[in-house]
Amino acid sequence: MLGYWKNLITGVLCLLLTPVTTAVHAQTDVLSAKESDPRVMGWMQGFPPPADKLITQPDSNYFSFPKLRWSVCHLREFLPTEEISRGTAAPVALQYPSPARFADLRQSIDALSFMPINGEKEMTWEESLYANYTDGILILHKGQVVYERYFGCLQEDGKHAIMSMTKSITGLLGQILVVEGVLDDTLLVRDVIPEIGESAFATVTIREVMDMTTGVKYSEDYSDPNADIWLYSAAASPLPKPEDYAGPNGYWEYLQQVAADGQHGDAFHYKTINSDMLGWIISRVTGKSVTELASDRLWRPMGAEQDAYQTVDGKGVPFAGGGVTAGLRDLGRLGLVMLNQGEINGKKLFPAEVVQTIAAGGDPAKFSGFPTLPSGSYTSQWWVFHNDHGAYAARGVHGQTIYVDPTAQMVLVRLASFPRAQNGYIDPTSLPAYQAVAEFLMSQ
Amino acid sequence: MLGYWKNLITGVLCLLLTPVTTAVHAQTDVLSAKESDPRVMGWMQGFPPPADKLITQPDSNYFSFPKLRWSVCHLREFLPTEEISRGTAAPVALQYPSPARFADLRQSIDALSFMPINGEKEMTWEESLYANYTDGILILHKGQVVYERYFGCLQEDGKHAIMSMTKSITGLLGQILVVEGVLDDTLLVRDVIPEIGESAFATVTIREVMDMTTGVKYSEDYSDPNADIWLYSAAASPLPKPEDYAGPNGYWEYLQQVAADGQHGDAFHYKTINSDMLGWIISRVTGKSVTELASDRLWRPMGAEQDAYQTVDGKGVPFAGGGVTAGLRDLGRLGLVMLNQGEINGKKLFPAEVVQTIAAGGDPAKFSGFPTLPSGSYTSQWWVFHNDHGAYAARGVHGQTIYVDPTAQMVLVRLASFPRAQNGYIDPTSLPAYQAVAEFLMSQ
Repeated sequence: MLGYWKNLITGVLCLLLTPVTTAVHAQTDVLSAKESDPRVMGWMQGFPPPADKLITQPDSNYFSFPKLRWSVCHLREFLPTEEISRGTAAPVALQYPSPARFADLRQSIDALSFMPINGEKEMTWEESLYANYTDGILILHKGQVVYERYFGCLQEDGKHAIMSMTKSITGLLGQILVVEGVLDDTLLVRDVIPEIGESAFATVTIREVMDMTTGVKYSEDYSDPNADIWLYSAAASPLPKPEDYAGPNGYWEYLQQVAADGQHGDAFHYKTINSDMLGWIISRVTGKSVTELASDRLWRPMGAEQDAYQTVDGKGVPFAGGGVTAGLRDLGRLGLVMLNQGEINGKKLFPAEVVQTIAAGGDPAKFSGFPTLPSGSYTSQWWVFHNDHGAYAARGVHGQTIYVDPTAQMVLVRLASFPRAQNGYIDPTSLPAYQAVAEFLMSQ
Repeated sequence: MLGYWKNLITGVLCLLLTPVTTAVHAQTDVLSAKESDPRVMGWMQGFPPPADKLITQPDSNYFSFPKLRWSVCHLREFLPTEEISRGTAAPVALQYPSPARFADLRQSIDALSFMPINGEKEMTWEESLYANYTDGILILHKGQVVYERYFGCLQEDGKHAIMSMTKSITGLLGQILVVEGVLDDTLLVRDVIPEIGESAFATVTIREVMDMTTGVKYSEDYSDPNADIWLYSAAASPLPKPEDYAGPNGYWEYLQQVAADGQHGDAFHYKTINSDMLGWIISRVTGKSVTELASDRLWRPMGAEQDAYQTVDGKGVPFAGGGVTAGLRDLGRLGLVMLNQGEINGKKLFPAEVVQTIAAGGDPAKFSGFPTLPSGSYTSQWWVFHNDHGAYAARGVHGQTIYVDPTAQMVLVRLASFPRAQNGYIDPTSLPAYQAVAEFLMSQ
């Protein structure tokens, strides 16, 4: 049975997608972006592929680099999922400048140079795309697409795992409900979910859940076989539980038995279980799954061109902390909705106050532990930079971001498969690049 | 480990979806369509649903009636799947008559009456919808939607498992390749797939595979624990194999070890493994998965309004014999493509000869074993009735059909979740009903 467990955990680990505290890939001789391009590696090519080019779940470590570079575009082929439907109407096309102007902008942006954080020499924008193992990059300025490129496993009609950017969708839905008066964020979790029982979540406010300032025990030390991450993985796995399994079944049963760790409200602790707690709360007050609500409130009204999808546990509960896969342009649409304070295509999706509250950020005094975000905060599951441009972002491991810069009127979406999970490794060649593009666009 | 196996098999059994020879549900007091409506049953309602309303994989028999009535719309929530992409363009809308005319037609069609096969009293069209546990029904006449209704788990933006109608998509793709000269159906399987080895499939022609006139051993006696269906289920399961598992892994490894049974070419034997053999052949000659090819040749060019999807085995091979789930209207578009000999929306998707060959049928002298299809034949994975109207159909267990009547210029799509699998139970109240509608439409 041990082998079975190992397989099970290997297969699901990837989905928790929170920053790892131990670097999994310490090698400095890691394959480059071009070398590890899944088309170059030959993953899953041929009918059937050669045995050494197969990526299967759970027999191989499908979510580790370099297999990761293929798997980020193919999660549904490994796991059960629920659709986030775009509906059946025609998509609303994104706006583009003339092809000549678009080509000019591409050339100008590619040539931009910037100094990486703690760097010694400048890097060009285009070099940064490869340094970051970019799979897709889309930049919108004043509502127009000014830059769009695809690499690796992604094409314009493909989809890519967005990892913990899922949390920001969950958080946005939560914040919409708060502003609309459907959800009172001053209530305790037990007021909304009585069956949370004696869990440490019982006495936390919904706002603390949304801002991840809860005092709940949840360790992600991958080297510790008793770390909570393993128990959460086992609970969440959609695979059949072993016969001798006695732990919680599914995300929500896990949440019912979380122990306390520290004081509620004291400090920001990035723990995925908060996002799943919020997902449960949202479903309880709306009577809808987070997939259905994301469809009703975002994907359908924003004129998405592709359905998105979300992985589910063994009881059909979507993984609100990391399970979404979506198309690049649709994430651009979501960024536009944020930039334009709830509006897109002349349609109002939700009150401007929703975005204003998120953009204002959480309490920076409670925020620490992220060296590349020295003035940051986290609120409603969004990262706020508190920089000159008032930028804020959705962020996911391995390099995913929707970066909104209200001053530059810029939305930037990057999907990537960086070998390491933690964005701390990726930010040094990313955040200054985003700033350089923003300044360039403001000069146009 | 026994319990694990039982779960595994329970979870995958449903996917083989060929006619059962032993009636699984012999009860005569089965719940009616209205009583077993999944909304009435309360399946998966609430966050979380009560324990007795949960449908999970593989802890419960999720693909047996009455759970079946919910699960046919939710297969992706149980299993890994691959997308059949519609692309990102705007769908091409189906044509409708005026609302007043549409309402008139609905009233007229609902009131039509017919005598069921071997029946004693007449039944109305509308009664037949409930008798057949219909989830979705769409009728197109001369290119216009004249009737469209949804029941149970299905809505117009939902999707439904199409079971063995999947075979007809696989067969259509195969026939397109034959007519276009990409696939030579007179070759032996071993000429195209040398690694088929000593399998009984080695010496069969591709045409025999397409028409299911192969002499290959494959039993589906569910009461026999050594029946091939169980071995196929175990091979095909996307769940992790038990440590002591020594059988084939995936559809294609299974096909490599099929034994002979009878003479190739002698007679039609409805065996799902032929469809998966054809799927492998198609992928080998095109370098594309059947999902990718269905997208390129059908879903994108026909202006589909929803992506479809297909379940996969543990190596990512789509189930070419039964794995597709799709929207009702998109199946109507597929029916229109057939009716119009490869054309839709003024676009030619493939040569008319493709449909002409299918509509001409296979050899009725080789066809037997289906009492409700006394003059039938099977070719390129389509059922041909050889009736006065020249009708032919895609068919899948539990009542799925795309029924094309060239004489009446009618396409009828029905998606259903009839308690029993075999269409022999459903045809008596279906085929005469289709004929009655066809005659009515011809009189308009």
